Amino acid sequence: MDFVTLIDYVGTFAFAISGIRLAAAKNFDAFGAYVVGFVTAIGGGTLRDLLLDITPFWMEQPSYVIITGLALIFVLIFRKYVVRLDNTFFIFDAVGIALFTVVGVERSIAAGFPVWVNIIMGAITGAAGGMFRDIFINEVPLIFRKDIYALACAMGGVFYYLCLWLGCGHLMTQIIAAASVFLIRVLSVHFGISLPSMKPIDK
Amino acid sequence: MDFVTLIDYVGTFAFAISGIRLAAAKNFDAFGAYVVGFVTAIGGGTLRDLLLDITPFWMEQPSYVIITGLALIFVLIFRKYVVRLDNTFFIFDAVGIALFTVVGVERSIAAGFPVWVNIIMGAITGAAGGMFRDIFINEVPLIFRKDIYALACAMGGVFYYLCLWLGCGHLMTQIIAAASVFLIRVLSVHFGISLPSMKPIDK
Amino acid sequence: MDFVTLIDYVGTFAFAISGIRLAAAKNFDAFGAYVVGFVTAIGGGTLRDLLLDITPFWMEQPSYVIITGLALIFVLIFRKYVVRLDNTFFIFDAVGIALFTVVGVERSIAAGFPVWVNIIMGAITGAAGGMFRDIFINEVPLIFRKDIYALACAMGGVFYYLCLWLGCGHLMTQIIAAASVFLIRVLSVHFGISLPSMKPIDK
Repeated sequence: MDFVTLIDYVGTFAFAISGIRLAAAKNFDAFGAYVVGFVTAIGGGTLRDLLLDITPFWMEQPSYVIITGLALIFVLIFRKYVVRLDNTFFIFDAVGIALFTVVGVERSIAAGFPVWVNIIMGAITGAAGGMFRDIFINEVPLIFRKDIYALACAMGGVFYYLCLWLGCGHLMTQIIAAASVFLIRVLSVHFGISLPSMKPIDK
Repeated sequence: MDFVTLIDYVGTFAFAISGIRLAAAKNFDAFGAYVVGFVTAIGGGTLRDLLLDITPFWMEQPSYVIITGLALIFVLIFRKYVVRLDNTFFIFDAVGIALFTVVGVERSIAAGFPVWVNIIMGAITGAAGGMFRDIFINEVPLIFRKDIYALACAMGGVFYYLCLWLGCGHLMTQIIAAASVFLIRVLSVHFGISLPSMKPIDK
Repeated sequence: MDFVTLIDYVGTFAFAISGIRLAAAKNFDAFGAYVVGFVTAIGGGTLRDLLLDITPFWMEQPSYVIITGLALIFVLIFRKYVVRLDNTFFIFDAVGIALFTVVGVERSIAAGFPVWVNIIMGAITGAAGGMFRDIFINEVPLIFRKDIYALACAMGGVFYYLCLWLGCGHLMTQIIAAASVFLIRVLSVHFGISLPSMKPIDK
């Protein structure tokens, strides 16, 4: 298992945990929590693959189904520690969206689409899972109201192409793009930076 | 029309009725209720077919569009009897998810996917329609909070492969898999068995 | 840019505005409002293209991404005037669904599907974007509860085939079908005509 695969699995685990926790807050049963965790982890990449008309990535090997199961077992056994590990999960999650974004951009490139589609696919890969999670548990998607999340993913795609344009090598491009997503996400939360809210346009 | 087609249509009718009833409870208009009934009936199989990259089953012949129309007419005309028929619809619905699960597993096998994908596709076919219905009418999906529903569909796929592994013939495998979904569903409701709810993990 | 393209863009702009306004009412941030506007504008056509197994139309050229951006800028700068322009947007929106419906019917014909699928695809193209918008912002889809909206799109497809059957030329068929959607939509709102609501079927 190489380094990228390891990060992919860590991100999947963190995403699944976030879905399972929110399902638990709504008193889903264990199987329902598993489904929400799974959809959170694979939803973004699945929407991307449907749009690109390629086989959804998680149908090619059972890792993601298994990792979600481990996340459920983790929450069931270590529930007391889950809250204490909040900061750890936040970092895992940020690492996850950083990697997912780069994977999404590159899968779209491989499918032969233009730059702007690839950037959108990166953002969908990183951010749409959390959106599906919130629709599932019947909440207004958090990722559009608090912190900088989806925008960090979109910026990662922009940095990816900025690096290519500046002549960086492939590995350097991947690292800088992922680092930009991670840093924008972590720093915006750390310093409480968020986009301004829209004001209602009432009659 | 053979026996399997008949059961397929009966299940579709029961699914459509459940969607139309919940739409009525939210004061949808007649056309909106039709759409919710249709999505409930075909949503699971449609998601499966999109994931498998095959033409959604209901686009190949108009039966499902027509049966949903009949379900709407039925609810409009016999609304007084719909409640009294609750137990009948519950049985129809359980027969429906049992058949849908087996159909889903076999369509996934035909598309060349491995065992664990086929089991998931069976569960999606049986359970995802009800999930779309609840998202549509803006409720937290019931199927993850009450009774055993999605799990019964997943178990049906497991029984399918258990039968194959034990050397059962094709027809026997189909019957046992469908019967296991039906019995798990009906017995769990009859005896009030459900999976334990997750407990919220508050700070 | 020909006339049909112009109307397509005007409709996209009106759809995006409606999504951005509803996102603003829920205090989404600017990026979230952009996403909701985009999904409202392209959601119907995207679902259609996924079902037809063709590349989603908005991935073939960046116009729709750009027009949604212009709609966001418009709302941010001219928010005071947006309400005053309500009637204008209503007309734009009605023109949009009229055109989207005809485009949807014809894309489905080109993909080789039968009449009834083509009519459904026309209705999905015209109406599903508004449905996704309402799911996103966590509201019960308005289009199934108020006014005649999705039904107008479905009727447009019926008129399309009625014209073909009567031997109208291609352009005449397009115009009559689009005009029927527009008129059914506008007249039903003007005269306060709506389908009867379903009554809850309580126990």
